[in-house]
Amino acid sequence: MNAKNLDPSEVRFFHGSSHLKLAADIAEYLGVPLDNTFISRFSNDNLYIQLGASVRSRQVYIVQSLSPPVNDHLVELLMMLDIAKAASAQEIHAIIPYFSFARSDKKDAPRISITARLVAELLHTAGATHVMTMMLHSPQVHGFFPMPADPLSSRPVFMRHFKEQHDLTQAIVVAADMGQARSAARFAKSLGLPITAGNKERISDTQVQFNGLVGDQVSGYKKALVYDDEIATGGTILELSKHLIELGIKEVWVACTHGVFVRGGLEKLVAVPEITEVVTTNTVPIPEAMHHPKLKVLSVGHIFGEAIRYNYSRQSIGDLFVFGDA
Amino acid sequence: MNAKNLDPSEVRFFHGSSHLKLAADIAEYLGVPLDNTFISRFSNDNLYIQLGASVRSRQVYIVQSLSPPVNDHLVELLMMLDIAKAASAQEIHAIIPYFSFARSDKKDAPRISITARLVAELLHTAGATHVMTMMLHSPQVHGFFPMPADPLSSRPVFMRHFKEQHDLTQAIVVAADMGQARSAARFAKSLGLPITAGNKERISDTQVQFNGLVGDQVSGYKKALVYDDEIATGGTILELSKHLIELGIKEVWVACTHGVFVRGGLEKLVAVPEITEVVTTNTVPIPEAMHHPKLKVLSVGHIFGEAIRYNYSRQSIGDLFVFGDA
Amino acid sequence: MNAKNLDPSEVRFFHGSSHLKLAADIAEYLGVPLDNTFISRFSNDNLYIQLGASVRSRQVYIVQSLSPPVNDHLVELLMMLDIAKAASAQEIHAIIPYFSFARSDKKDAPRISITARLVAELLHTAGATHVMTMMLHSPQVHGFFPMPADPLSSRPVFMRHFKEQHDLTQAIVVAADMGQARSAARFAKSLGLPITAGNKERISDTQVQFNGLVGDQVSGYKKALVYDDEIATGGTILELSKHLIELGIKEVWVACTHGVFVRGGLEKLVAVPEITEVVTTNTVPIPEAMHHPKLKVLSVGHIFGEAIRYNYSRQSIGDLFVFGDA
Amino acid sequence: MNAKNLDPSEVRFFHGSSHLKLAADIAEYLGVPLDNTFISRFSNDNLYIQLGASVRSRQVYIVQSLSPPVNDHLVELLMMLDIAKAASAQEIHAIIPYFSFARSDKKDAPRISITARLVAELLHTAGATHVMTMMLHSPQVHGFFPMPADPLSSRPVFMRHFKEQHDLTQAIVVAADMGQARSAARFAKSLGLPITAGNKERISDTQVQFNGLVGDQVSGYKKALVYDDEIATGGTILELSKHLIELGIKEVWVACTHGVFVRGGLEKLVAVPEITEVVTTNTVPIPEAMHHPKLKVLSVGHIFGEAIRYNYSRQSIGDLFVFGDA
Amino acid sequence: MNAKNLDPSEVRFFHGSSHLKLAADIAEYLGVPLDNTFISRFSNDNLYIQLGASVRSRQVYIVQSLSPPVNDHLVELLMMLDIAKAASAQEIHAIIPYFSFARSDKKDAPRISITARLVAELLHTAGATHVMTMMLHSPQVHGFFPMPADPLSSRPVFMRHFKEQHDLTQAIVVAADMGQARSAARFAKSLGLPITAGNKERISDTQVQFNGLVGDQVSGYKKALVYDDEIATGGTILELSKHLIELGIKEVWVACTHGVFVRGGLEKLVAVPEITEVVTTNTVPIPEAMHHPKLKVLSVGHIFGEAIRYNYSRQSIGDLFVFGDA
Amino acid sequence: MNAKNLDPSEVRFFHGSSHLKLAADIAEYLGVPLDNTFISRFSNDNLYIQLGASVRSRQVYIVQSLSPPVNDHLVELLMMLDIAKAASAQEIHAIIPYFSFARSDKKDAPRISITARLVAELLHTAGATHVMTMMLHSPQVHGFFPMPADPLSSRPVFMRHFKEQHDLTQAIVVAADMGQARSAARFAKSLGLPITAGNKERISDTQVQFNGLVGDQVSGYKKALVYDDEIATGGTILELSKHLIELGIKEVWVACTHGVFVRGGLEKLVAVPEITEVVTTNTVPIPEAMHHPKLKVLSVGHIFGEAIRYNYSRQSIGDLFVFGDA
Repeated sequence: MNAKNLDPSEVRFFHGSSHLKLAADIAEYLGVPLDNTFISRFSNDNLYIQLGASVRSRQVYIVQSLSPPVNDHLVELLMMLDIAKAASAQEIHAIIPYFSFARSDKKDAPRISITARLVAELLHTAGATHVMTMMLHSPQVHGFFPMPADPLSSRPVFMRHFKEQHDLTQAIVVAADMGQARSAARFAKSLGLPITAGNKERISDTQVQFNGLVGDQVSGYKKALVYDDEIATGGTILELSKHLIELGIKEVWVACTHGVFVRGGLEKLVAVPEITEVVTTNTVPIPEAMHHPKLKVLSVGHIFGEAIRYNYSRQSIGDLFVFGDA
Repeated sequence: MNAKNLDPSEVRFFHGSSHLKLAADIAEYLGVPLDNTFISRFSNDNLYIQLGASVRSRQVYIVQSLSPPVNDHLVELLMMLDIAKAASAQEIHAIIPYFSFARSDKKDAPRISITARLVAELLHTAGATHVMTMMLHSPQVHGFFPMPADPLSSRPVFMRHFKEQHDLTQAIVVAADMGQARSAARFAKSLGLPITAGNKERISDTQVQFNGLVGDQVSGYKKALVYDDEIATGGTILELSKHLIELGIKEVWVACTHGVFVRGGLEKLVAVPEITEVVTTNTVPIPEAMHHPKLKVLSVGHIFGEAIRYNYSRQSIGDLFVFGDA
Repeated sequence: MNAKNLDPSEVRFFHGSSHLKLAADIAEYLGVPLDNTFISRFSNDNLYIQLGASVRSRQVYIVQSLSPPVNDHLVELLMMLDIAKAASAQEIHAIIPYFSFARSDKKDAPRISITARLVAELLHTAGATHVMTMMLHSPQVHGFFPMPADPLSSRPVFMRHFKEQHDLTQAIVVAADMGQARSAARFAKSLGLPITAGNKERISDTQVQFNGLVGDQVSGYKKALVYDDEIATGGTILELSKHLIELGIKEVWVACTHGVFVRGGLEKLVAVPEITEVVTTNTVPIPEAMHHPKLKVLSVGHIFGEAIRYNYSRQSIGDLFVFGDA
Repeated sequence: MNAKNLDPSEVRFFHGSSHLKLAADIAEYLGVPLDNTFISRFSNDNLYIQLGASVRSRQVYIVQSLSPPVNDHLVELLMMLDIAKAASAQEIHAIIPYFSFARSDKKDAPRISITARLVAELLHTAGATHVMTMMLHSPQVHGFFPMPADPLSSRPVFMRHFKEQHDLTQAIVVAADMGQARSAARFAKSLGLPITAGNKERISDTQVQFNGLVGDQVSGYKKALVYDDEIATGGTILELSKHLIELGIKEVWVACTHGVFVRGGLEKLVAVPEITEVVTTNTVPIPEAMHHPKLKVLSVGHIFGEAIRYNYSRQSIGDLFVFGDA
Repeated sequence: MNAKNLDPSEVRFFHGSSHLKLAADIAEYLGVPLDNTFISRFSNDNLYIQLGASVRSRQVYIVQSLSPPVNDHLVELLMMLDIAKAASAQEIHAIIPYFSFARSDKKDAPRISITARLVAELLHTAGATHVMTMMLHSPQVHGFFPMPADPLSSRPVFMRHFKEQHDLTQAIVVAADMGQARSAARFAKSLGLPITAGNKERISDTQVQFNGLVGDQVSGYKKALVYDDEIATGGTILELSKHLIELGIKEVWVACTHGVFVRGGLEKLVAVPEITEVVTTNTVPIPEAMHHPKLKVLSVGHIFGEAIRYNYSRQSIGDLFVFGDA
Repeated sequence: MNAKNLDPSEVRFFHGSSHLKLAADIAEYLGVPLDNTFISRFSNDNLYIQLGASVRSRQVYIVQSLSPPVNDHLVELLMMLDIAKAASAQEIHAIIPYFSFARSDKKDAPRISITARLVAELLHTAGATHVMTMMLHSPQVHGFFPMPADPLSSRPVFMRHFKEQHDLTQAIVVAADMGQARSAARFAKSLGLPITAGNKERISDTQVQFNGLVGDQVSGYKKALVYDDEIATGGTILELSKHLIELGIKEVWVACTHGVFVRGGLEKLVAVPEITEVVTTNTVPIPEAMHHPKLKVLSVGHIFGEAIRYNYSRQSIGDLFVFGDA
């Protein structure tokens, strides 16, 4: 059985203010119109939101990345879910390409919040009946969602990119840290490459200490594919790259699914001559001004589109899935 | 039975970043230390929060006004509640002096959110077992909270102020609009004054049309006490005040519980010569720079303090309450 | 897209004992059979109810007004909802033309119940997945329902009636009290008439004191359209009407959505010569014996019918809605 | 450890309108004041209830029998529970001496309600944290309550009565029907008597056909102790008694926990010369006018009192319990 | 309207490890394929289960009897339900031919569990949206399920068997104990036979004392149809049969829905010459080795099949039902 | 403030059948009696459990390891929780030294269960209000529990053991696989040792392929401390150890928190001459017959005891905690 196309009269497709472009791409891929959402503020700073099309008994999709400003985007999403629920929507799919809260997935200090779990619960309270997201910081975060959730994989787009655009001889995959090692290992295997991992340690909330590689073994390799799920300031990646260069690596490709890039993170990376490419996806919108010849943004719109189509057609989306090794 | 003092070893008293001063005032009134809360941001803009004292089996109080930036303050509060819940707190009291979402209390357009209800539910999901707040926009909002809630009244502080500081002869109370008329009427009655009301109509999300008074009857009065629950831009109040002045009122006192004052709202009001005083409370923090000789800020710290003490002592806080006419 | 007709094989249409006539009207409007409900009592006074048609995976509608005897009608409704839920109904729509509990919408004394919220929760526990009702006492009550709810407006039927049946020159709309002023103002605006409001104050549970008009301004008008959501004993309306007559009004039309009429309330009103018409709707059944030439009962069956049809067709029922100003 | 007395400052003791006398008896037994409850009706027939004492963080007890008018008493109870919950009570104990809905404990026809389960859920929604009741129609009903529940036994009072007041030689216990046979058997065993059972069959909602005894064996006995949980019209008991008399029984004692007695049920029983005593308890109030020399009402106030005291003292109330054979 | 056939593309039909044969029978009756379930164990003894076909938006049926080893079969079922829920199944039907926990349906000792209620709740938590089962130990257990449940009757297959295979003259139905008397009475009535009941008493968890018949009346009958819901060790049935034989019964037929047969229970029964037949159904799988000429196993596969078909077709399954007298 | 001792009259301390010894150790450490639990089976294989002491309003602790037979131990625990809940316990603490389901913490194949999350939910449904456990397979599993949970660390006992019993010069810590690398790294740091990790890959449900070390760097070290959370068959550990020995390691110490040891796993390890010690804790009971001179079992009873005492005293148990790196 092939996946069938969405019937535009059955679905409603909305977007929050975080990422109009990606929402439009997905809607276009699916052949359904992107419905309007009116978002403004009352003078007391409270959001005022109105969905621009009737959702009664419809299948509603809401696309929102939890990119900065994170709290504004979260509250927007919660309100949109609530509106759809109260207006008698039949199914409410929260499409969250970048679920930034996934990083807060454990309690490594007393009296902090496992915020990823909290936010998953808040989405449920607000009305989401299904969540689609991509490359959660750790695969266990999947279990925090009380409703069915599909964490999709960005690996296929990275795989095609590296296979088609790069000569992978003498290359090694380097996981940014041990937390990403399992995901990186699976990626490396599919490329037929070996794997090593950075050894970083969190000193405080804001400080991370880099302790070299786990095993320090890159001799004999010329190229390193540094792999992480998310890059913000890029500090660790920069340090790791410099270490690799010192160990003899001549060319570094940096790959991350979620390119948050703040505080000059991208600029610092591309300034290193040996870093010849920074590859990311469009789960987080990247401002025009930030584009740079070394930056390559791969689109994941078709992955979300295809997953929605499979789900709509009641087909397994296992092939698009990221079973347990985000 | 008298209300007894809090045992500092039984309670923990935290504050979000919205209003340190009021939290400190309440803690001081209660004779308990204000515990530390560490709030910072991860580089991907996610909040990182740690409560600075053990809450295990304690009665936890968290003071947070939902003042601008509203979404940041809301997410902060939700995370703090979640931390307290997951860390085995026994009771979790959310003290929300200004619950700004109360304005979104009904559905006066299709596919919008009754956000006050949504936020009440989110507070419940996150872990609040009890809420204290003040002067909800409409008294029905009380019913949105799934946990016990005590909406306190600011009227006693206004009453004392006007009785002690003003000559009320030839004065009339003017409700800012009909929605506030019931609350204003009760206030007027306690001052022994007559009452009228402004007649405004919402034209769109941002535009309000002022249609004069309900009945247009202020002849014979010299002074008007304009009464509202919340002032942000102050537009309606300004128009209403000018109308009253045209009708012969010589002196206008503006009173509102929640002084949000944005976009020069306060400045425009105090620029009118006949407006001789703008009285508000400290449910919303007012920056030093905004203070003005005509602005009078009444403290409600002792009201929250007393309500907490009554609650702690298992006494009715009915006298501090605002039964049904906020 | 036009609303489509209900497929009788997909729906089941039941009624409680409160208002067979209205249920039959709605079913007829929709072209579906009215299914039987068998209601009797065990000798220990417990209700015994059996639904007369299979509801398995069907869309079930249950029509029940919460008119006197209120508690019997409420328990009947709860049991019918429970039966439908336990018998695997797919959707369960509670159609409650008169939701009398809406009057208990706030806590204006200590240790009383916001019964409207309680009953909304009980309906949810018993199994209602959707509620339709009409002209809630205050628009905020909408937010008490944990499931989607559509409070419909009776204003269209009143509007047509007054435009077609009456000469509105020199007429003024008079809201029965300030709580109804917003709804009355919207109604007045749609008729192109001015507006004033009665000023009543609740002295105790059973006593209300009437303090004249807000502004006392009806000079220059000949006719008054007194507007309220619900009339039971009619005491306030009587007093208000007499006051208007004293002020020079020659003809009074009394309009209310829910004509509960108890303790001779209707009789007292129609005995006043200047009250030439009492207009209500059929949300509450009016016994044959109570009919009187001055009483005009407008049917709202087609409004419920149309709303059900729109909902069934997954269309917005916004036009039938009463956005925020019941 | 002995059960300790209740501290009046920690508890609040309220009653609905069903059974003031029993509530007062229990309160007196416990040495705590009976707090006031104000119950009235709005003119639209909605209940208005106010609890007369602060319940904040208190242990609240509410005594209400679900005797006729059942629906009024149920809604009263639900509202009182809701008030206590919303007013921050710590524990809310519903003391329901007669839980009449227990008879609706199974689905013996399609599309009827297992109302006992529904009502147990409604009590939970409204706020009850614990239920005490007596002699449920079947012991499985215990499992319907989502909160802890203690169904107490009335057998001890019947046992003492029959042992002290009657000569039990040549007596046999006769269960009214097979549903009560297990409970009757345990009762018979504690009195050292043999047991038989009536064989009735429900023909329709209102009709029951009596088919003699299961086994028809009472020869050799002179006295029959007819035992049932509840008597309303008394029809079956009358027929059973006549059958026993025909079989040679000279004296019949009728015993039932819940004496609902409607439609002349009691009068018909006491008119039979061989029926020399009808013994019941005071779980249901019996109007003064109904008292008769042959009617003996045993008080169960001390059983509820003792169970509350044990519970308050954190002691097992197993001895007062009716393990599985109500 | 006739029941329609299942569309294989809409349903998924799985089985746990308890009873492959019955699952296959039902699937075959329905004309749908039996999907694979892979069940294995991790080395730490944790179950590993994978459903072998996509369930996304499908109607999922899972057949599992809670036969020994009961706990393994329960946890298997809970995991399969959870998988279906998390994988976005639309409806999840737990088909539980033998719900063994139903025996724990009341609290006849302090601090024991009403396990039937607990397990019903666990099934709900794990994701079951509907339960089908057969001949619950007591009809009240139906009320323990928070989701719709259909307890089917095995009586039709017994009825046909006894009517077609036996000469019922001079036969009497004997309920195994008073708890089964109501169900047995209904069965006896449909066969046109009289009824009596055994009188057993539980002495301890493992000991039951048999006290003869209720009424001891079988004189005049030659054949006894001993009727119970479940037979495990068969101890009581054996004693009851011997007692009947002593009283003059020449032939005993033993009938029970759930033939659990442990510790030589079946062997002891068939060894009694007067017991000429033991009839049971296939709700519990009976090992090949246990078959015996006197054992007759009636299939109930078509009853489950038909009930599923009726449910699928949105038809009342009342005729297959066991209204209140299992 | 120091942790205070438990008041035996306030607590009840029960154990399931998995680990009497550890339960007794903890109770002894706390100075409270170990209450009886009666566990038997009905003849149909259903568990029958009775708690041996009143739990009414008590703080109840139930100790149960989810060791093999896992399903039996799980159902036992669920029933014991349910009994405590239904019997009005005030707090119900599930003390689960070995939460074996933690290994199923992500979805690495389609249509499998995140069983750790399911079981956490089942514990919540059954009544646990708090969970204490040790060294969860991944730290994110903490977030699966809907109630407060404290995963304790076994590292302190391992640390003391290795510091006191071994010469750590020329030793390196080897994480069994990358999933345990973060926890091992923290352990290594506290011992002042370097760290490397095994690189294993799961080929199928039952097969794991070992790919050497991440980096293959142990040259220069003589001793390896192989560190894992749980050992069952010991296959990977054996392969890893052999690899280390080939690389020149002379002595291997194997440390794991949960010694499940099945299918000769322990025997195979101790047969390797270079493996001089296998250290584990007593979270899982180890049969007498399995003891071996090379096996060292460290007790964690005092850690659970101390954590319970801290919790009881309302103190932070942060120092005993395993913040985020189990």
